Amino acid sequence: MLFPILILLINQASKMNAEDGVMEELATEKEAEESHRQDSVNLLTFILLLTLTILTIWLFKHRRVRFLHETGLAMIYGLLVGVILRYGIPATSYHNKTPPSCCLEEGPVSTLLLNVSGKFFEYTLKGEINSREIHNVEQNDMLRKVTFDPEVFFNILLPPIIFHAGYSLRKRHFFRNLGSIITYAFLGTAISCFVIGNLMYGVVKLMQFIGQLTNKFYYTDCLFFGAIVSATDPVTVLAIFNELHADVDLYALLFGESVMNDAVAIVLSSSIVAYQPAGASTHTFDATAFFKSVGVFLGIFSGSFAMGAVTGVVTFTKLHCFPLLETALFFLMSWSTFLLAEACGFTGVVAVLFCGITQAHYTYNNLSEESTKRTKQLFEVLHFLAENFIFSYMGLALFTFQNHIFSPIFIAGAFLAIFIGRAANIYPLSFLLNLGRRNKIRGNLQHMMMFAGLRGAMAFALAIRDTATYARQMTFTTTLLIVFFTVWVFGGGTTPMLSWLHIRALVDPHDGQVSKTKQESAWLFRLWYTFDHNYLKPMLTHSGPPLTTTLPSCCGPLARCFTSPQAYENHEQLRDDDSDLILNDGDLALTYDDTAITAKGTSSGGADAAGAGWGVNGKRSSTTSEEALEREMDQEFLSRSTRLIFPIEDHA
Amino acid sequence: MLFPILILLINQASKMNAEDGVMEELATEKEAEESHRQDSVNLLTFILLLTLTILTIWLFKHRRVRFLHETGLAMIYGLLVGVILRYGIPATSYHNKTPPSCCLEEGPVSTLLLNVSGKFFEYTLKGEINSREIHNVEQNDMLRKVTFDPEVFFNILLPPIIFHAGYSLRKRHFFRNLGSIITYAFLGTAISCFVIGNLMYGVVKLMQFIGQLTNKFYYTDCLFFGAIVSATDPVTVLAIFNELHADVDLYALLFGESVMNDAVAIVLSSSIVAYQPAGASTHTFDATAFFKSVGVFLGIFSGSFAMGAVTGVVTFTKLHCFPLLETALFFLMSWSTFLLAEACGFTGVVAVLFCGITQAHYTYNNLSEESTKRTKQLFEVLHFLAENFIFSYMGLALFTFQNHIFSPIFIAGAFLAIFIGRAANIYPLSFLLNLGRRNKIRGNLQHMMMFAGLRGAMAFALAIRDTATYARQMTFTTTLLIVFFTVWVFGGGTTPMLSWLHIRALVDPHDGQVSKTKQESAWLFRLWYTFDHNYLKPMLTHSGPPLTTTLPSCCGPLARCFTSPQAYENHEQLRDDDSDLILNDGDLALTYDDTAITAKGTSSGGADAAGAGWGVNGKRSSTTSEEALEREMDQEFLSRSTRLIFPIEDHA
Repeated sequence: MLFPILILLINQASKMNAEDGVMEELATEKEAEESHRQDSVNLLTFILLLTLTILTIWLFKHRRVRFLHETGLAMIYGLLVGVILRYGIPATSYHNKTPPSCCLEEGPVSTLLLNVSGKFFEYTLKGEINSREIHNVEQNDMLRKVTFDPEVFFNILLPPIIFHAGYSLRKRHFFRNLGSIITYAFLGTAISCFVIGNLMYGVVKLMQFIGQLTNKFYYTDCLFFGAIVSATDPVTVLAIFNELHADVDLYALLFGESVMNDAVAIVLSSSIVAYQPAGASTHTFDATAFFKSVGVFLGIFSGSFAMGAVTGVVTFTKLHCFPLLETALFFLMSWSTFLLAEACGFTGVVAVLFCGITQAHYTYNNLSEESTKRTKQLFEVLHFLAENFIFSYMGLALFTFQNHIFSPIFIAGAFLAIFIGRAANIYPLSFLLNLGRRNKIRGNLQHMMMFAGLRGAMAFALAIRDTATYARQMTFTTTLLIVFFTVWVFGGGTTPMLSWLHIRALVDPHDGQVSKTKQESAWLFRLWYTFDHNYLKPMLTHSGPPLTTTLPSCCGPLARCFTSPQAYENHEQLRDDDSDLILNDGDLALTYDDTAITAKGTSSGGADAAGAGWGVNGKRSSTTSEEALEREMDQEFLSRSTRLIFPIEDHA
Repeated sequence: MLFPILILLINQASKMNAEDGVMEELATEKEAEESHRQDSVNLLTFILLLTLTILTIWLFKHRRVRFLHETGLAMIYGLLVGVILRYGIPATSYHNKTPPSCCLEEGPVSTLLLNVSGKFFEYTLKGEINSREIHNVEQNDMLRKVTFDPEVFFNILLPPIIFHAGYSLRKRHFFRNLGSIITYAFLGTAISCFVIGNLMYGVVKLMQFIGQLTNKFYYTDCLFFGAIVSATDPVTVLAIFNELHADVDLYALLFGESVMNDAVAIVLSSSIVAYQPAGASTHTFDATAFFKSVGVFLGIFSGSFAMGAVTGVVTFTKLHCFPLLETALFFLMSWSTFLLAEACGFTGVVAVLFCGITQAHYTYNNLSEESTKRTKQLFEVLHFLAENFIFSYMGLALFTFQNHIFSPIFIAGAFLAIFIGRAANIYPLSFLLNLGRRNKIRGNLQHMMMFAGLRGAMAFALAIRDTATYARQMTFTTTLLIVFFTVWVFGGGTTPMLSWLHIRALVDPHDGQVSKTKQESAWLFRLWYTFDHNYLKPMLTHSGPPLTTTLPSCCGPLARCFTSPQAYENHEQLRDDDSDLILNDGDLALTYDDTAITAKGTSSGGADAAGAGWGVNGKRSSTTSEEALEREMDQEFLSRSTRLIFPIEDHA
């Protein structure tokens, strides 16, 4: 939130500086000062808006109001301020006249020099303006000023939100449902994108047929629309799930899907844009261009993924004694991931997401206790401010954005299309997934996933990124309305919907009732966990068993070289460490039952003790590996049920 | 640190967006993409620079290296990168040609339209450029890009640093030495400014006489230089004081002075700028303009002070159960202070400073325990990143800033002048202050204060703000060199200087040795404390005695109305609360010995118990008010000696 405000301030300040420093003899100084003051007032408006939102959220949380989430609230306040700015304040302009223009033969250049009686002034290109707007360039100053550069959302507000999502991902449930999440996120988003895109193309054709649409609206524009509205953001729903302790697997599926499909949607939309120039003149289907697009998609996605994962892994920190340095370093490394990806032509946001996930999995274990808290809190605040800022800006944008194109047919078509698109994603894929899942996704969960297809920050950011053409302006307006509707209506209806669908809390922390949630695709899950726990974790973190115990004895020297000295002293630590470790410990017992017997004895003893403390199932009888794993999982699930139920609070 | 990077990114992104969105048919798209990538690389450079600094700092802290502080280190790395950017990379330019220019009769306007065969493009003014630079406009792209907008320093990097300084101010020692601190900060800075200004005017006259200076250099430019280099920033010295547990009063004096004189210098410099236009043609002394400037100074300063203090006081937070909301709110309120001040034409930085001080004094007591930690840590990280960014940027600027003017005579004169200016501040004022102080500022402390006159972030930010004229460019270059020299030489020499001047730790936390530090101007101090403790604190915070016990009984209804319900339950809390409260409790006993006897009994009993826990002086014998206060102070001083010795860690 802070950043765009500052940027606006600085953009303005830079203008002001240029004006009052270099040309103090000119009469622009007073105007610059006035403009600077006006800016401060505008920014103040945003800050007060956020303050108001926070105070109301507090009130709501206090009163346990659940029908309106903070993001929905932020939008309402944004709307109100937008109305005031639009209609309440007379257009203030310093001089209501058309700015002077000059002619040039060549195309527009990024830098232009102006020669005023021998003195040269440098001008930079701001963009093309419609000829109808020429007379309004300075008139709607006020509205223009509260309009941020779209790239602000992409490069400044989204990264902390996405990083936080990755960093606060509950690893266990995420990995247990990884197969389904990936299916929904990749295949599902692609299906949704193409279904919506094709339906909208039909709507566009219809509109052209009945003469409602005279401007250009290509097939790629429809696909682009499909891509951006396929990014779901069920922040409201998840917050309520959290509060009501709803089904953990459903939570994992929804959260995982929403996190991953943001990444898919962003890469998908840029692939579609990359596809455009190839068919520039025709905008029809072109197989070569299509496969090129698919190639671009795969290249960008895997590149960004690899970059994020690698940077996440290499952020080894050993600055234990200095939490401030550690926190600062952690923050800088996350940011450098974003920048590195952008510098290499990949997608920074995607890289940051996977960087967050890997950092939560590996680096987190290396941080000192103080730093784990600090980093969580720092990113939590950034995420909170960024998210609420985006949503309040959305409310504001409905009235202050100046190129809205409201087309009732298009909007109605879009609402229908996103409904069908979501259905074509959830139901068929759930059916297919259920064929392979031990723990089926039941019908009511499918309906809930269907219902939880809210659109949010990512859809907005993608839509506002480019509002140059008629098609994109219509896309932007429609996306904005979709976000409003889904956040308010679906978000507000979550609680009734949950009870209507009989989705109750599977585990209530108070009465200790347990459900037998079994992991899907057990072999894949176990294979990964074993590898991760025995080799990756010991190498990349200070936790886990020493490599010397997990590697065959022939690799002794290598193992000693890669094992951190702390790893040997870690048996103590395992007791109060992350829940994964206890789980993995069972895993360890399972594969290296003979070599790792001492480590297992110590630490699972600790886990047992914890379980016994809760008075349930504190005894081990059989050592059949699979059963042991299952039992340890359930046991840990039970003994830590309060922690497991609040996935966000767990990490945030 | 984050912000300017992002801003640069965004400024660029905005350009890119304008270019690739609106004019996708134009060939500028590729250039824009290239430029965006280049930007990311530049930003990455900064982040890696900071990362490197952090890693080296860690190494230094680990090895207890004290001759080089992190800021000095950041400058060195900045210098190295600057050298590489300047000489190591061939000038990369997309097309080495002069940009097209067009002529206009009128003066420069902020918005210019360009008509290219019927299409209109909007351009914004960037600034005047010298005719010699016209051909370089695009050539030195690389160097230009790593140059931030000066306002970034002012509006984004300084506020967190200054706010943190205010927020981490150790209230007790600050208030005990308030008189001296104000004297040094106001009178001292003014003296220093005028001494340096006049000496530099002599230097300038000399240079003009021997033909070394042909451009204009007015008296006001000299005064401006005096103002900006009068802002001391002994961050290095204070860090070492902290580590070596040096004299607490000296620490308070130096820290207090540096915090306050930043505020004075910034207002002083803007008053001098305000003075300029009045004598625009002559630039000679003009009594009316001078008094106008003094009026401007007093107006801006007191306005900013009042605004900061008021906002600090009104940030009442009662969102106890939600630390995240509380932290976000606190952050937003601090920012809104800055913006409000700017919007009203005051100085945001000064307002933020006093806002920090008042928030630490009042709001801090209202925050939940969790939030106090979070806010401290949040601002600590912001402060750390901002400070190190500024210092590394300084190193960079020595090579990448393109309008340096190195004038050996001016530089030599400036070094002499700042030495004399500092001496004219410290020694005479110390003499005067010693007449009134019970606890004299001894000779060795005076020498140390003289020595600790480092220049830092504020001087740099003020100097870079305006580098349009020849005089200002010379000022900037000289200030940069002064900062380098003082940080490296004086900063590095602190440890030897301390031992040479025989300034040892007055209280060593390990052997419990006590010095009798007596507060100066006891009556003023006591008057303020009594008022603050009995009326302000109960009204503004949940701590302190209920107003019903401190106000005369006739004001009963009013008192009940203003006292928070928590205040009545606070006797418990007092025991482990802020040290001020215990101190104040003695104070309370002193003035309302009869009415407040119960409150006193409970809480000072707690204080005694704490003292007894430390095994020293745990017994109260006399109740003479003044002696009691003294004793309580010493006792608390002793029992909490570890906390008192580390003033920054105490709050940060």
